Amino acid sequence: MTKEKNTFDNFSCPLPFSETDTITIAHGGGGKVMNKLIENMFMHYLSNDIINEKHDGAIFNIGDQKFAFTTDSYVINPVFFPGGNIGELAVYGTVNDLSMCGAKPLYLSLGLIIEEGFHLKDLEKIIQSIKFACEKSGVQVITGDTKVVEKNKGDGIFINTAGIGIIRDDINISPSYVKPGDKILVSGDLGRHGIAIMSARENLEFESNIISDCAPLNGIVQKLIDANIEIHCLRDLTRGGLASALNEISTQAGVEIEIEENSIKVDEQVRGICEILGFDPLYVANEGRFTAFVKQKDSEKALGILKSKESGKDAAIIGTVSNKSKTGIVTLKSIFGANRILDMLSGEQLPRIC
Amino acid sequence: MTKEKNTFDNFSCPLPFSETDTITIAHGGGGKVMNKLIENMFMHYLSNDIINEKHDGAIFNIGDQKFAFTTDSYVINPVFFPGGNIGELAVYGTVNDLSMCGAKPLYLSLGLIIEEGFHLKDLEKIIQSIKFACEKSGVQVITGDTKVVEKNKGDGIFINTAGIGIIRDDINISPSYVKPGDKILVSGDLGRHGIAIMSARENLEFESNIISDCAPLNGIVQKLIDANIEIHCLRDLTRGGLASALNEISTQAGVEIEIEENSIKVDEQVRGICEILGFDPLYVANEGRFTAFVKQKDSEKALGILKSKESGKDAAIIGTVSNKSKTGIVTLKSIFGANRILDMLSGEQLPRIC
Repeated sequence: MTKEKNTFDNFSCPLPFSETDTITIAHGGGGKVMNKLIENMFMHYLSNDIINEKHDGAIFNIGDQKFAFTTDSYVINPVFFPGGNIGELAVYGTVNDLSMCGAKPLYLSLGLIIEEGFHLKDLEKIIQSIKFACEKSGVQVITGDTKVVEKNKGDGIFINTAGIGIIRDDINISPSYVKPGDKILVSGDLGRHGIAIMSARENLEFESNIISDCAPLNGIVQKLIDANIEIHCLRDLTRGGLASALNEISTQAGVEIEIEENSIKVDEQVRGICEILGFDPLYVANEGRFTAFVKQKDSEKALGILKSKESGKDAAIIGTVSNKSKTGIVTLKSIFGANRILDMLSGEQLPRIC
Repeated sequence: MTKEKNTFDNFSCPLPFSETDTITIAHGGGGKVMNKLIENMFMHYLSNDIINEKHDGAIFNIGDQKFAFTTDSYVINPVFFPGGNIGELAVYGTVNDLSMCGAKPLYLSLGLIIEEGFHLKDLEKIIQSIKFACEKSGVQVITGDTKVVEKNKGDGIFINTAGIGIIRDDINISPSYVKPGDKILVSGDLGRHGIAIMSARENLEFESNIISDCAPLNGIVQKLIDANIEIHCLRDLTRGGLASALNEISTQAGVEIEIEENSIKVDEQVRGICEILGFDPLYVANEGRFTAFVKQKDSEKALGILKSKESGKDAAIIGTVSNKSKTGIVTLKSIFGANRILDMLSGEQLPRIC
């Protein structure tokens, strides 16, 4: 059996990249540069009705059952950090993406890429954490794969999880359901995960007792659903933080969003470190926080549910979907009363946060 | 919100690893060392009814629909090789794992881990190949994720795909259905993928015109199913090759397997390179070959179906599941008439073949 040539020899590569254009850290940063790569490259070639929805997970039907399916790779550095490790994060991250579709997460896959020389005791801690996180979230790992790469061809361990969940037939949660008048809630204070990772990096010269907020969100989302809150959109506030999530939603939903800075809670220590480093906490990654767009009449009830959990004590209604016609715009009313446009993260604030 | 400590601080790490034990290349090799890690570490902590089946994919029911779910990470080096590239491989590999469960593959997830400095034109070729491979296999990528790691913390690009397929209610394909008397078929000649990769490695000093056999197997498996062949087990012959796959099946099914060397086809050039390098082609990885265990009465009909495809012209019935009581044993009757035990690959023959 011989083929004439490789399939890719026939490709013309028509996209406007030059031979010298390369991937930069910003291509993985969750901001504008990454979104441009997704739009111009991935969506250009891999477009279909399901992926085009650009939700945290893909939603599809088989028979009369609605499903959600999602994937994330975790390349966080360091792999052990205050409040968790890459194993827990890999479970919660995918559980949370399914939860943001309104799905009940059921099953996970687990793909490990391990660098030669990684300590087996550290791997054991990570696998134990995966077990712990699965039990905490009520999901099971049912299939897996292990690859090993040579020393200096990886960085300790990278983990991919993909997840499957089921969605109740009457639940429709997606940016396309966001409407003017919707109230915007945030489930807690912001910026802990990013600052916890940063303080755990060896080369940074400060110490804090900030711990990551990483946690599964399926329990609290299920509570909102069970209380018949009319939820229009959910999104977890990972890479790019609250600001990037709101920008994505306002663009995808074709609405304008107005939020109030003084309703957004940021821990004093987190704020202090952000000021020293020149970071805006609204762009810092979280791993256990989400935003919910709900019908106005249900917003106070939804807030009460979020606040009923210890981790939600700082939950708040932070803004509104406005009636104005400027779509894809997020306006922040600052604590001093002035309005400013809250743009999407343009590059990479802090690499390898998840 | 503060936690007292990390969850993993409470773990005792009871497994018998020392502080100095580390991951070696063999832990990803598909042989004995990898299987020991899977048994002693992953199955120890993550055991459940579905994962315990140890099939190429996980099989589960939701409502009255049977599903298969699988994942693989691809770390192949080089990413472009004679006959394909990492993008095609990542689609076919997961499509094939689903096919080995008797499933019709439907949807894939796509997780990219890209090293800073990777050329965008190369990424474009890979994404085009993924599109091509999806069309060829009749599947869709419906969700994805992109991470970027710093220069020298990865190796060009790693790809993870997970896949979902559906299984006809009356199809039961798994090592546990293998029975004495079953005939064992192989779908074509062996060793092309491994030798093609090897010849593409810069540091190896030989040239060949061998090209990888990488291809989707869902079409041919569907033909076997549609012809009502009573298939008991299917497995693709990737890491560890035919010998490791047969050893896994004989152990999982609790049977003895007998195969005949002279019925197994290996291309002369592949065999020549194997001899020079001291490799046994029965242990070399393939990416478009599988073994099928079928009821004896259906074996000739199944062979005819395999041979009806150009890529299956060298398909053959290579052996039998014996009645003998020694389980977990694979016996090879050599071309000289002598019998020898065909053991599992003990370490790593050729790293990063997939």
